Amino acid sequence: MAVNLAPPNPANLLPVRGVELGVAQAGIRKQGRTDLMLMRFAPGSRVAGVFTQNSFAAAPVQICRQHLAATESIRGLIVNAGNANCGTGEAGLAAANRTCALVAARMQCAPGNVLPFSTGVILENLPVERIAAALPACFASLSEGAWGAAAEAIMTTDTVAKAVSRSSTIGGQQIVVTGIAKGVGMLQPNMATMLAFIATDAVIAAAPLQTLVKEVADESFNRVTVDGDTSTNDSFVLIATGQSRASEIASVKEVAYLQLRATIMEVAIALAQSIARDGEGATKFITVEVGGAATADEAARVAKAIAHSPLVKTAFFASDPNLGRLIMAIGNAGVVGLDTSRINIHIGSIKVLDRGGRAVTYTEEQGALAMKPAEITIRVDLGRGNANTRVWTCDFSYDYVKINAEYRT
Amino acid sequence: MAVNLAPPNPANLLPVRGVELGVAQAGIRKQGRTDLMLMRFAPGSRVAGVFTQNSFAAAPVQICRQHLAATESIRGLIVNAGNANCGTGEAGLAAANRTCALVAARMQCAPGNVLPFSTGVILENLPVERIAAALPACFASLSEGAWGAAAEAIMTTDTVAKAVSRSSTIGGQQIVVTGIAKGVGMLQPNMATMLAFIATDAVIAAAPLQTLVKEVADESFNRVTVDGDTSTNDSFVLIATGQSRASEIASVKEVAYLQLRATIMEVAIALAQSIARDGEGATKFITVEVGGAATADEAARVAKAIAHSPLVKTAFFASDPNLGRLIMAIGNAGVVGLDTSRINIHIGSIKVLDRGGRAVTYTEEQGALAMKPAEITIRVDLGRGNANTRVWTCDFSYDYVKINAEYRT
Repeated sequence: MAVNLAPPNPANLLPVRGVELGVAQAGIRKQGRTDLMLMRFAPGSRVAGVFTQNSFAAAPVQICRQHLAATESIRGLIVNAGNANCGTGEAGLAAANRTCALVAARMQCAPGNVLPFSTGVILENLPVERIAAALPACFASLSEGAWGAAAEAIMTTDTVAKAVSRSSTIGGQQIVVTGIAKGVGMLQPNMATMLAFIATDAVIAAAPLQTLVKEVADESFNRVTVDGDTSTNDSFVLIATGQSRASEIASVKEVAYLQLRATIMEVAIALAQSIARDGEGATKFITVEVGGAATADEAARVAKAIAHSPLVKTAFFASDPNLGRLIMAIGNAGVVGLDTSRINIHIGSIKVLDRGGRAVTYTEEQGALAMKPAEITIRVDLGRGNANTRVWTCDFSYDYVKINAEYRT
Repeated sequence: MAVNLAPPNPANLLPVRGVELGVAQAGIRKQGRTDLMLMRFAPGSRVAGVFTQNSFAAAPVQICRQHLAATESIRGLIVNAGNANCGTGEAGLAAANRTCALVAARMQCAPGNVLPFSTGVILENLPVERIAAALPACFASLSEGAWGAAAEAIMTTDTVAKAVSRSSTIGGQQIVVTGIAKGVGMLQPNMATMLAFIATDAVIAAAPLQTLVKEVADESFNRVTVDGDTSTNDSFVLIATGQSRASEIASVKEVAYLQLRATIMEVAIALAQSIARDGEGATKFITVEVGGAATADEAARVAKAIAHSPLVKTAFFASDPNLGRLIMAIGNAGVVGLDTSRINIHIGSIKVLDRGGRAVTYTEEQGALAMKPAEITIRVDLGRGNANTRVWTCDFSYDYVKINAEYRT
């Protein structure tokens, strides 16, 4: 079902010095598939994260925030798929803490040096004993070459594993960036919208790393939406092991910071786009570009209104040039004082709306043609200013309903 | 498809003295069905309306606002189904004005005394000549008994016509209230969310009538949501012909005002609920009640977050007690400082969430049973204050996608 998205070729996934990955079958999601993933980081690794803005943040998200606030030394992380450990109250926090303790005991560190992550069904207690039982196998499989297996182990309704690598040179020294993500539903651009882990062997101080994780999230994962629902478990974590020979980046003002950011951004954007390409039931990959906005916030509101509208998304699924729905969505974005007579809309290269009215050159045949491809760009010019944004989404098909109606069965 | 919603029995639709209705086939929507509806009001009738908050308000909405601002004498209204006359620029305004002029010529009034309404596809020019050609038949069919036929003529993807009547006594005199509405998709509670026309023969001054239309909209049509999209054409119009023998209501402080409001509210709530019952693809009618909120706005945000979530709606379609999705939706409502450990949730009489965690008494079997009925109430107590609200919605089925993917075919 995924739109122009092939599974990663393991040969293309570059190991990151200082990061080992292990997987195991804990039997939390389904029997017979891996659903537990462990990352172990070399001493001295620095880790930063951004998390869901949902008020019902899951227990592991709460624990991650605590641990990241309390220490600069994160030695590993553990992820289970199939259970979100959310809406589970005190028992959920205890389960997440116990998971950290189990991992820490084997790593010979404190539980506070481990980050826990969960993804899956909400409101079910996490079966920690199944994690405990699977941990020996998980540790036994640790290797620097297991990025592909790790990407598979964190999948829920993803149909394709998501992993991307890039390398570049900073100050004459090669650095590597490799990341994995899982996405699918309950996704909208309001903080990282899924689980994503990106590691690099670059050397970077804690302060610029913290800025970096936010900057990258804003321009990648926060630009993806599938259904407008923000998960309780969204997490994006950036790990810098410092194991390359590059010099340490001490400040966001250094050229090296911008170089590293560009490479990490490339990985993050590729992962983010792959999440939209593999949105639940997706048959089309849609880029919504909004320009001419007075503010970035305004541009984002308009892009999100389009990308979230079930009516727009079903029209794209049907390749039905019912493009009036775009107008309806823009009009619902809550932009104060919007002068609709200044708005232009293109689908691909076809002008649909010209200064607020149907373009005289526009024909239904053109519209139908423009909506057929598997990759479509919608461009909206609000004619109000110079701010712009870009959001990636997918269409809304029968299969979205099917997948979500039958998620747990 | 509609949930527990029978077509109106014409024998139960009470004529309103001073309101005549006519219908005709203009061939705008489909051949062989009525799609044009005319109401003519007796001299002295007072009319008030509330309209969509979408920035791309359709041409007829713009004209309605102008006419209502310019005169207290509205003599009639004309509605076409099948074309929204929206995103049509100057040509659209000209088409709406010409429609008014055509009606006014036959009513021997000014175009400014006529209100135009359109519902249907956006971004297509309104074929005014088809309206002109059908108007003679529309006028020829005018009668006080045609409320049922009028309700049918304004339908788009509605599967059941929506019409409701009530009568009551004000100061010893009987008054009658009859209303019709159409709804289906592109619906959310942000101003009247569809077309609705309610008429009464009660006698009421212009100022309290204006208050009345807003109060009624807030507690009826603004509480309905199907898909969270607000149409460009939403309109709710209240007509008071003053033809009953009741005394004039001069102020909102009179007991008679409250009596009239109660009767009109009853009609409006029945119509609003019928819109949710007949939401596109609906198989379940869902009432979301939120209490214990700090403010009414906060209660509304939470209720809407639940009612708009595609993930919640597909779970209800499947009768799958995947109730963690309710938590996710509540957490996304943007309530600042929400203490999730004070939140309780019931589905029907089953307690699902107890102070932020899964209720110990809750079982999946109970959840599955509670989600089976065609009518379901979700109750959320935020434990923060005394404000509350109520929203009506429906589930999200394969047929929503089907109807909207194939809307124009």
